[in-house]
Amino acid sequence: MKKSGYKIAVVGATGLVGRAMIKVLEESTIPFEELFLFASERSAEQEIPFKGKLNKVKNIETTDFKGIDIALFSAGKDVSVKYAPSAARNGCIVIDNGSYWRMHPQVPLVVPEVNPKALLKHKGIIANPNCSTIQLVVALEPLQKSFGIKRLVVSTYQSITGAGQKGLDHLFSEIEGKEPKKRVSSHQVAFNTVFHEITDESGFSVEEIKMKNEIRKIMDLPKLPIAVTCVRLPVLGGHGESVNLKLENTFDIQQIRNIFRNSPGIILVDEPIKEKYPTTQLSSGRNEVFVGRLRIDDSVRNGLYLWVVADNVRKGAATNAVQIAEQIINDDLFEFTCFDF
Amino acid sequence: MKKSGYKIAVVGATGLVGRAMIKVLEESTIPFEELFLFASERSAEQEIPFKGKLNKVKNIETTDFKGIDIALFSAGKDVSVKYAPSAARNGCIVIDNGSYWRMHPQVPLVVPEVNPKALLKHKGIIANPNCSTIQLVVALEPLQKSFGIKRLVVSTYQSITGAGQKGLDHLFSEIEGKEPKKRVSSHQVAFNTVFHEITDESGFSVEEIKMKNEIRKIMDLPKLPIAVTCVRLPVLGGHGESVNLKLENTFDIQQIRNIFRNSPGIILVDEPIKEKYPTTQLSSGRNEVFVGRLRIDDSVRNGLYLWVVADNVRKGAATNAVQIAEQIINDDLFEFTCFDF
Repeated sequence: MKKSGYKIAVVGATGLVGRAMIKVLEESTIPFEELFLFASERSAEQEIPFKGKLNKVKNIETTDFKGIDIALFSAGKDVSVKYAPSAARNGCIVIDNGSYWRMHPQVPLVVPEVNPKALLKHKGIIANPNCSTIQLVVALEPLQKSFGIKRLVVSTYQSITGAGQKGLDHLFSEIEGKEPKKRVSSHQVAFNTVFHEITDESGFSVEEIKMKNEIRKIMDLPKLPIAVTCVRLPVLGGHGESVNLKLENTFDIQQIRNIFRNSPGIILVDEPIKEKYPTTQLSSGRNEVFVGRLRIDDSVRNGLYLWVVADNVRKGAATNAVQIAEQIINDDLFEFTCFDF
Repeated sequence: MKKSGYKIAVVGATGLVGRAMIKVLEESTIPFEELFLFASERSAEQEIPFKGKLNKVKNIETTDFKGIDIALFSAGKDVSVKYAPSAARNGCIVIDNGSYWRMHPQVPLVVPEVNPKALLKHKGIIANPNCSTIQLVVALEPLQKSFGIKRLVVSTYQSITGAGQKGLDHLFSEIEGKEPKKRVSSHQVAFNTVFHEITDESGFSVEEIKMKNEIRKIMDLPKLPIAVTCVRLPVLGGHGESVNLKLENTFDIQQIRNIFRNSPGIILVDEPIKEKYPTTQLSSGRNEVFVGRLRIDDSVRNGLYLWVVADNVRKGAATNAVQIAEQIINDDLFEFTCFDF
């Protein structure tokens, strides 16, 4: 039986994504009994407005999550590892924005437009995918359904906001000609092209490996051939993605346009001769995924180009997490058997 | 018989590329008898230093190019259309940086590392390719020779300096919170992702069409399957290119590394775990093409990833033009039959 109001928590409430989560929750249709904000001891006691009232951020160590219906986590790996299992054991559903739980076989990795049914079997922890993955699978799923995807090649144009407030500070320090206090890259970020952290001998960055694994898990295409290169840029408002697809079946561009026009969460902006196409600035503050620059790729059979943009802090993180929460509420998915994480 | 000194001209001497041409000429091994600088009447009378002396820019309308050995043009389409044929008819070899002459069947389109022999049959006008094309073919040619290329997919990360001084002014006005006096895009350029001009119903930008045509002409691979997406960014120092290749023959990464280490004009920077890779900032002011992020692309047979960066104003324009001039001088290619352009 549905409740008249829910107790929702945001963990990591003072971060870039945490603050966006609070804003998206405020705009959502979720009926609130109470919103709890948590952060590390260092950030506790800050006050953040929510629905016209100031809400005090509490030290995460003061809660056991009992009685909280859903907690949205965006507080870094250590917090997800330490607090998500105990919260779930205490009956609180965790929607975790970090990468730690995403590939766990007992954790659904969910983009509501793509694999909402994965939520039905949740065991207390649900993972929110990587930002660059979310916007891409929203655009790919309708094409997979209608034509089948044989191969995906993608190069990303990712906002430095993917590195959080620290990334923004690094960028703007350099633009002002100052040495950044904290760096997100050993390279200059302002006016430059850098890559995400690379730790694997294969040469792939952590971001690239995440994208490959997560796309396959969410779309349930474990063998989909994927080539991905992720680039971090001094851009704001969202991530861009240059996509080349080889589809299984023949298509024409008008069919693709119609499919995108009728797909949830997608806005088609594709009048290039009028200079109308998605930009990261266009996507800023929006919850949808923007698609444009549809072109036939004649270098391969059934080839298609796409340009996909979304606000990485919104649909790439906060919005998607809130949409998962909305679906849990709408489908009343609060009864679950907690897995022994 | 070689001369002891040459009369060289730069047309469009006050522009971003023109000034770089003067600098690269100064650094070159070319023996000068005299350097002539030309520009429109509006920019004439400016003085630009060359080899320790101030050199006055002259109005282009005051010259017929007689007696000048080589003229490097970078003054826009109208100037190339109007002055290049008459200069060539008067015995002056024109190396034109604009796009107007590039696809003309009687005009060699030359990147000295790739197709130096195309210069042997020149007819007075030689075209300097598009910036994003030059750096790419320098990296592709050694792979084509050793393994054969079956398909090329490239997404570019292009500096706003590709739009010249006007592009820089647009960017920095916006960073300072001011409305740009002259715009290079109807979109915001600062912190954003934009595309080059799109006039074709196919949806391809002018830049994308140039790249496809020019790569095929320079590499003499008229049917090479190419997919290209060009993106203009608020970055400086050079253009980046994310490249996915399907090669004809099997390879291993160590072979590719050795090939690049032994290829002219290429610097391999590929120690990603130490955060050593090419960035646009790294290429700034350099004449070489930087290659890195070599990875096996397992999404296709014989697949290879590359990341290619070069200073678009240097190797992408001024340096390549000067290298063409150097080759004309070294190979004494001053005798030519002027085509009736």
